Amino acid sequence: MTRILVLNPNSSVGVTRDMDAALDLLRSPGGPAIVCETLSEGPPGIETQQHVESVVLPIARHFADREADAYVIGCFSDPGLALARENLAKPVLGIAESAFHVAIGLGQRFGIVAIKQGSIPRHMRHVRSLGFESRLAGDRPLGVGVTEMSGEGVIDRIVAVGRELRDRDGADVLILGCASMGGYRTAVEDALGLPVVDPTQAAVARAIALLSLGYRKAV
Amino acid sequence: MTRILVLNPNSSVGVTRDMDAALDLLRSPGGPAIVCETLSEGPPGIETQQHVESVVLPIARHFADREADAYVIGCFSDPGLALARENLAKPVLGIAESAFHVAIGLGQRFGIVAIKQGSIPRHMRHVRSLGFESRLAGDRPLGVGVTEMSGEGVIDRIVAVGRELRDRDGADVLILGCASMGGYRTAVEDALGLPVVDPTQAAVARAIALLSLGYRKAV
Amino acid sequence: MTRILVLNPNSSVGVTRDMDAALDLLRSPGGPAIVCETLSEGPPGIETQQHVESVVLPIARHFADREADAYVIGCFSDPGLALARENLAKPVLGIAESAFHVAIGLGQRFGIVAIKQGSIPRHMRHVRSLGFESRLAGDRPLGVGVTEMSGEGVIDRIVAVGRELRDRDGADVLILGCASMGGYRTAVEDALGLPVVDPTQAAVARAIALLSLGYRKAV
Amino acid sequence: MTRILVLNPNSSVGVTRDMDAALDLLRSPGGPAIVCETLSEGPPGIETQQHVESVVLPIARHFADREADAYVIGCFSDPGLALARENLAKPVLGIAESAFHVAIGLGQRFGIVAIKQGSIPRHMRHVRSLGFESRLAGDRPLGVGVTEMSGEGVIDRIVAVGRELRDRDGADVLILGCASMGGYRTAVEDALGLPVVDPTQAAVARAIALLSLGYRKAV
Amino acid sequence: MTRILVLNPNSSVGVTRDMDAALDLLRSPGGPAIVCETLSEGPPGIETQQHVESVVLPIARHFADREADAYVIGCFSDPGLALARENLAKPVLGIAESAFHVAIGLGQRFGIVAIKQGSIPRHMRHVRSLGFESRLAGDRPLGVGVTEMSGEGVIDRIVAVGRELRDRDGADVLILGCASMGGYRTAVEDALGLPVVDPTQAAVARAIALLSLGYRKAV
Amino acid sequence: MTRILVLNPNSSVGVTRDMDAALDLLRSPGGPAIVCETLSEGPPGIETQQHVESVVLPIARHFADREADAYVIGCFSDPGLALARENLAKPVLGIAESAFHVAIGLGQRFGIVAIKQGSIPRHMRHVRSLGFESRLAGDRPLGVGVTEMSGEGVIDRIVAVGRELRDRDGADVLILGCASMGGYRTAVEDALGLPVVDPTQAAVARAIALLSLGYRKAV
Repeated sequence: MTRILVLNPNSSVGVTRDMDAALDLLRSPGGPAIVCETLSEGPPGIETQQHVESVVLPIARHFADREADAYVIGCFSDPGLALARENLAKPVLGIAESAFHVAIGLGQRFGIVAIKQGSIPRHMRHVRSLGFESRLAGDRPLGVGVTEMSGEGVIDRIVAVGRELRDRDGADVLILGCASMGGYRTAVEDALGLPVVDPTQAAVARAIALLSLGYRKAV
Repeated sequence: MTRILVLNPNSSVGVTRDMDAALDLLRSPGGPAIVCETLSEGPPGIETQQHVESVVLPIARHFADREADAYVIGCFSDPGLALARENLAKPVLGIAESAFHVAIGLGQRFGIVAIKQGSIPRHMRHVRSLGFESRLAGDRPLGVGVTEMSGEGVIDRIVAVGRELRDRDGADVLILGCASMGGYRTAVEDALGLPVVDPTQAAVARAIALLSLGYRKAV
Repeated sequence: MTRILVLNPNSSVGVTRDMDAALDLLRSPGGPAIVCETLSEGPPGIETQQHVESVVLPIARHFADREADAYVIGCFSDPGLALARENLAKPVLGIAESAFHVAIGLGQRFGIVAIKQGSIPRHMRHVRSLGFESRLAGDRPLGVGVTEMSGEGVIDRIVAVGRELRDRDGADVLILGCASMGGYRTAVEDALGLPVVDPTQAAVARAIALLSLGYRKAV
Repeated sequence: MTRILVLNPNSSVGVTRDMDAALDLLRSPGGPAIVCETLSEGPPGIETQQHVESVVLPIARHFADREADAYVIGCFSDPGLALARENLAKPVLGIAESAFHVAIGLGQRFGIVAIKQGSIPRHMRHVRSLGFESRLAGDRPLGVGVTEMSGEGVIDRIVAVGRELRDRDGADVLILGCASMGGYRTAVEDALGLPVVDPTQAAVARAIALLSLGYRKAV
Repeated sequence: MTRILVLNPNSSVGVTRDMDAALDLLRSPGGPAIVCETLSEGPPGIETQQHVESVVLPIARHFADREADAYVIGCFSDPGLALARENLAKPVLGIAESAFHVAIGLGQRFGIVAIKQGSIPRHMRHVRSLGFESRLAGDRPLGVGVTEMSGEGVIDRIVAVGRELRDRDGADVLILGCASMGGYRTAVEDALGLPVVDPTQAAVARAIALLSLGYRKAV
Repeated sequence: MTRILVLNPNSSVGVTRDMDAALDLLRSPGGPAIVCETLSEGPPGIETQQHVESVVLPIARHFADREADAYVIGCFSDPGLALARENLAKPVLGIAESAFHVAIGLGQRFGIVAIKQGSIPRHMRHVRSLGFESRLAGDRPLGVGVTEMSGEGVIDRIVAVGRELRDRDGADVLILGCASMGGYRTAVEDALGLPVVDPTQAAVARAIALLSLGYRKAV
């Protein structure tokens, strides 16, 4: 049976559980198994470049020990993507790049709901490296602390930032710039009337597509 | 049961049969039904702009009469795409735009194997309209007549053109610029060592992904 | 005598009359005759993609029946442009593409006064297909109903939108995104101090230039 | 009567005569007078940046002394364009920028037939400054001395370079990168089957269009 | 001893003195001599295109009479740059182009603090001619008269404009769009928390780098 | 005394010695000390992504233990750049990004002499991430084994590839795509008549410039 392994590179099993729940809509009886795992040696959250780099080799080792038909790295910094692609003769997907790919198929110009202001330069370099800069409407930070990332308040804040991206920057599709906000997708879509991309869903959907088409590599 | 309708807008049932065969790899027990139909009132082949425009309203009528969860227009000119999108509250995919979207996920710069020299300006406008011009390596015509589009000779010609795209233009992924060349995909991949995109396969794979992710519109 | 045929593809003779009046500044004793005609079988206004597609073949037939040295399609959706170009060994101009071409010769970055929000994605694809995205400052809708498109109120609204394009988006030239707003051009120029492009005027001026230069095709 | 002044900024009256002859196709009974003049204090040819700069102030003085409705600077380096635009409340056109503007209306990607290899970096900066880099196919030098710029041999050489631009670089429209090659335009078009842009013709045609449309400035 | 000549092309020795002071941070015991000179025949300030053109040949003559290892033209319009480069087999740097080059190494997207609204179109063409348009966040004018360009008020105004560039346009690095604002650099950096580029400093630093690397030409 | 630390992240002291020698031209009596060190725990050469990732944390630790005013990572894959920048409140430069920055100041379009075909996709992503894609002429591999990277044969091969980049791709400046080819720079410049960028020299020159200008961060 075809099997897609989604690795949450932080050690928070709650995040893995949220990702897993958000992927239910991609599961079907005859379809591939979608398995979410936690990198137990990862930090509780990937918030710094030190965190990013600290999980690169562990992600590679984790994947090397598991058979799967495709691999997804469940962090919006796409840590260890190049290495996993070199090591494995299977499709490996990053969730940030996948979100960008899916978003340009849903609207003319996408807006990114970033967690932190400090991530925006990295997003810009990433978007430009794909050649998608003419499709980027804007990138705005939530500006909330990690502890505030649950509860009603978060949805309100995401909606407020999404409204700015829509009304000031001209975005007609939004990306949630984090692995574990998929649970808010529907609420944000309903509030703003725009399609919203959950990066983890985007990456798994791309993995399913690549596998069904018989490609062994992604970029 | 989920159902994707792929319409061949020319009246050649042989072409529909070839498309249908190329889509087998996207069929699975629990997956969506993929149904290929022929626009009987279409011309035998879509070779001119007159042909393109002559099928726009018939495609819309054909779709209006059929229930489906997603619709694919099986011609590399993407005829009637904007109209079908306006009419239907379901994803509608063109195969040319889908080929471009899939190709940029498989390589840095794609090459297009065009049927005719005269199509190249239209391809360029299309690629630029998506903002993908920095990802286009080249576009070269087969320069064979329609009657030569079957038999061994065609594969040789496709491989020769693909080799030019790879070696002169720097393409690392190829697009077959026609709805009915999917049967050659594997042979071309084997001969050139590059991933090859069949546009019809690309469009159906995108339709499946959009449906599973719960999006009702594509662009 | 040289003759340029401008076809209003909607059936509203009032619109044709407005276009005709706006073209007076391009008429001169020894210059080409500029003839405006109405597509009587067209809808009263081209407001949907269904309207656009419904006039493509009628425009082609209309042109086929009339001798002219150049043809202009008088609708900001440029319906039937590719077909007319294939059919006729004469220059055929769309008014939207012509407006973009003229605008980039009058300023660094143009703003589009759109009729409806829903047209903006189409404008973006069109601008990108020409490679002009670095010259687009913004695109903002009037948000008025068709019935409000006459009288004093419209000018006020165009000026208000134009001011946003100038002051927020940095536009230094404006495009009126509709075939029949040419009558407002001078008032808007006076109010905002920017050059304003009437698409129909732009297209006819380009037709005259191409004819005088001896080119038989435009793109 | 409307009057367009075309200034050849080099002192070679033969060049002025050639330009004048090439502009005949833009003259018409009721149309503007097109007057070609020679900058007698200019160098015999504009071949160096020293030549370019040496004519900037003289061009401005020349224009200041003459009434005209529009002004054209007849040298492919567009010397003194910014200054003339500042000084005059009338349209002032450069022939290089005009050639680029006209070419992108005639094909997808233009090729430039340069006189000298050394001009190519300047052309690139100019094309990029207009935002047209995605429309540039190639730029190749004739590599002939000035003394060889007449006679049969030149046409053969232009055609040879144009063929390279068409067949290797994918150009579908050509620009003659010099003020005085207009006489060869038809021969090159016939030999290669592509539209060919003479920059001086392009600039005067743009001037006529701007005047008839009532614009007082170009960029 | 290596020697870099910085020429202030206006005749205001106070400006030269300010430039000279701002360059102190680039002087070191074993390093190149950095000599600032005033073009006595220049206008008091370079405010119009007429001013720009009037100094082109004088700059070239001034440089021809002085031995130096590299030359810097100290005006944000980069007057006479192409000519000086043609004449001299040494690096010649413009301060505007140098500011753009340095800024893209300090942030993702730069904002320009322009003196006058009227300079912005020229800046845009310049930025595009370098291919840096995807790195430009915005360009906003100070809107102060020349006489107001000293005293406390100027800093406040620069900071206010810089804040708009940072907060509305998303700039993460600022350029002071004038040769003589280097004295304000630190105050602006402190107020806004962004790196600020003084163009004259940028050009001299580039000159030092090119010389030490042994290059004889810049572009 | 100011001090720049250049770290060769592979363990080959011969490579470090070559880099050190190529940096002599940036050393001066009063200038910063330029110290080259070897990452003894690195692999003998950085040839795979596994090599790249394996040195990221060691580079960061190496830098953490050494006081310096600026840091350079001496490998054309720029390993560990983001992490070192996060950790250190000092300029940290990658040699690949620095080579791109310096090259666009020396020519219109640069060519890259790559070691291996497999590096080209990474180079493309990097160039696009900086927004420099319109300045890239081409990227061609040497196609020689590591053992062949010394002796006369290598220069001949570099010159042959550089000639292709110049004559086919239109490059007017070349980048040696490796940390240790600086010793060949002069020979290649002499053979081809183009400026040649050694990435390590480029990075150190940028570090010196940033330090002298008082910036604490680079991007």
